[in-house]
Amino acid sequence: MIWVEVITIGGEILSGRTRDTNFAFLARGLVGHGLACQWHTTVPDDRDALTEALVGALTRADVVITTGGLGATPDDITRKVIAAVLKRQLILREDVVRALEARFARLNRPAPPNLQAQALVPLGADLIENTLGSAPGLRLRTEEGRFLYCLPGVPFEMERMAAQFVLPEIASFAPAARRHTRVVRTIGIGETVLAQMLDPLIPREITVAYLPRLGAVDLYFAAEAEARSAEAVLDRVVKAAREKIGTLVYAEGTEEIEELVGRECALRGWKLAIAESLTGGALAAQIVNVPGASRYFAGGIIAYANEAKTTLLGVPENWLREHGAVSEAVARSMAHGVRSRFGADVGISTTGIAGPDGGSVEKPVGLVYMGVDWPGGHAVIRRIFPSGREQVIGRAVLAALDLARRAILGMPIDPGRV
Amino acid sequence: MIWVEVITIGGEILSGRTRDTNFAFLARGLVGHGLACQWHTTVPDDRDALTEALVGALTRADVVITTGGLGATPDDITRKVIAAVLKRQLILREDVVRALEARFARLNRPAPPNLQAQALVPLGADLIENTLGSAPGLRLRTEEGRFLYCLPGVPFEMERMAAQFVLPEIASFAPAARRHTRVVRTIGIGETVLAQMLDPLIPREITVAYLPRLGAVDLYFAAEAEARSAEAVLDRVVKAAREKIGTLVYAEGTEEIEELVGRECALRGWKLAIAESLTGGALAAQIVNVPGASRYFAGGIIAYANEAKTTLLGVPENWLREHGAVSEAVARSMAHGVRSRFGADVGISTTGIAGPDGGSVEKPVGLVYMGVDWPGGHAVIRRIFPSGREQVIGRAVLAALDLARRAILGMPIDPGRV
Repeated sequence: MIWVEVITIGGEILSGRTRDTNFAFLARGLVGHGLACQWHTTVPDDRDALTEALVGALTRADVVITTGGLGATPDDITRKVIAAVLKRQLILREDVVRALEARFARLNRPAPPNLQAQALVPLGADLIENTLGSAPGLRLRTEEGRFLYCLPGVPFEMERMAAQFVLPEIASFAPAARRHTRVVRTIGIGETVLAQMLDPLIPREITVAYLPRLGAVDLYFAAEAEARSAEAVLDRVVKAAREKIGTLVYAEGTEEIEELVGRECALRGWKLAIAESLTGGALAAQIVNVPGASRYFAGGIIAYANEAKTTLLGVPENWLREHGAVSEAVARSMAHGVRSRFGADVGISTTGIAGPDGGSVEKPVGLVYMGVDWPGGHAVIRRIFPSGREQVIGRAVLAALDLARRAILGMPIDPGRV
Repeated sequence: MIWVEVITIGGEILSGRTRDTNFAFLARGLVGHGLACQWHTTVPDDRDALTEALVGALTRADVVITTGGLGATPDDITRKVIAAVLKRQLILREDVVRALEARFARLNRPAPPNLQAQALVPLGADLIENTLGSAPGLRLRTEEGRFLYCLPGVPFEMERMAAQFVLPEIASFAPAARRHTRVVRTIGIGETVLAQMLDPLIPREITVAYLPRLGAVDLYFAAEAEARSAEAVLDRVVKAAREKIGTLVYAEGTEEIEELVGRECALRGWKLAIAESLTGGALAAQIVNVPGASRYFAGGIIAYANEAKTTLLGVPENWLREHGAVSEAVARSMAHGVRSRFGADVGISTTGIAGPDGGSVEKPVGLVYMGVDWPGGHAVIRRIFPSGREQVIGRAVLAALDLARRAILGMPIDPGRV
């Protein structure tokens, strides 16, 4: 495995003002080339900080990529720091000066007086052409045989250079040592329990990472072995894991549960309608996030007030009085009501207590009922989610999508919470 | 100035699979407390890497915050590495074991057998309560007087601990050297235009940071001068800035626009109802995120299909035929229809083309109409947002909330986009 590190140079990232899309692009690009980033450092536009980060990275890594600090303003320090760290002279490259002048002439703009700053290059550096901007990138090889790539901070310039030149070159260094990965997505089971279930199944050469999100856990299986056997071992392990976890697995790869539910509805020519109390629109919003959702999503009713539950969804008033708005009976009636109101095939409902107020001993904050009404019948599940308003809502959205998945696919409706 | 560093522990960030929202949250939070992050390192769940990163950070920084690696799975290594680096023993804290067991009992779930792993705490560490999850956070003070905070990687748990405890505590370490800050929140104006408007107003001793979010920009004014004069200068500058920016400022401090809209509705005893096509529930969901929203939020109708617009909102069929679903007439009719359907005082509507498909030359992807119908009259605004499905929806939600704010407060309805 090649050890690759990325250093982001830029105070705007450290202040949280700007998201580091450059790093995300490089990280994914490395994985896409069968490589991995091992370490990422972000430092401000400051000589001492960049020096320390570079020295550290060049001690550990085979390849270091920096982004930023190649412009012509005083806080663009990358060239100078690199020259100092590698003990190389900075050379004014006349060919770069001429190329920059030609570029500005072509764009019909006056060449800036500090243009020469961008033509300073550490001795022995190769230039990486910048087809979309002015400052060229740099590639250097240290005496110890490590590679250093310096790319500009402007995202589209950086991305073009990385995709066209840097990433393929790094990948060519060690074609044999690629990493094999597989993703399995689960819902309704905690990472601790998953780890217990899977531990005995995982051979030495496979690593598993558990990535929890609200109410769901993604499993990342990775192997670093030789190409063919790694794929075979991964196949075997993933198959065993899926058998063990059962219907709590909802997808492999990158598919989201709302995409799956939508796809399965579209496949059957079914329309989906949503009645939300607790989740207040968040469930429908997640469904609508999928491009093309209008093919299967009819719409929804957010019946936040009790009156709306009665007038818009046909929930009997005496049920609200007898059972309360947060009850199995009302969840069932809401799912049924919205299905018939929209003339849909699948109706889903949520009702519950998001908190922080409104809970009681009998009906605590976090109590949620979710209903489904579909050609296969009707069902309601009940959960008590850990408190925190956004958390209760977020978990209910996911659980309701899972309920829809189970109903549509004819799976057991309620596996409980494992 | 206190030197603060953040270490993100997690291979999923380095692989580009997951965005590091934890770091972005901490970076912004530090700026919001008049502090700044000086250095950020991301390492995989690997003992050697974390050890090296920690040793480096503890050499440079006054305060180090780590996120991740506090779970109970084998790749959760933070506790062990910290104990090793600080040369402290790991103690099994019986009180933590009991708290974790009580938590699982409360949630009606079996306690996992490896629960004890989360109760291992380096000697001398203080616990930071995790109100939303299981693993508590840790605070340690090194022999050199540096502070180390270890927070979980699950974003909502981390955010709660950071906001409630860690960030205020760090800010309290150096009250004298502390920067005085003020936050002014704007909507519907870009950061470049804002910077041009404000530049002449800002004296030397004040810095302004522009933190753009989707369709909105927060302004952070900061002064490092002595307490009293700094506050006075800030008062003056913020006042001048507010006068210059006018109604594009919606709040000072931390109030969100959905909180403001809700508060102003509640103040008047008004009920709010929402008719969503384009935003598909996302607008209502944002309103419902505010605790106590049931006091003023009646509910909503997600009229995704045209039929729902007619049957549920009373949009005349021939308007849909003549003007199309994405039109001023339909937006107006939807706002009116939902207001009367729910017997509400304020009706808000959204209709538009989220993309990626469905656009035309006349009605491009990103075209959005938003309507409001309230005791003061009715109005519709039109926008064309930059494409990207989530971006169009997100910007429309914010613009619709701003429309509601302007209507309720009796401000000019449409400032356009500056």
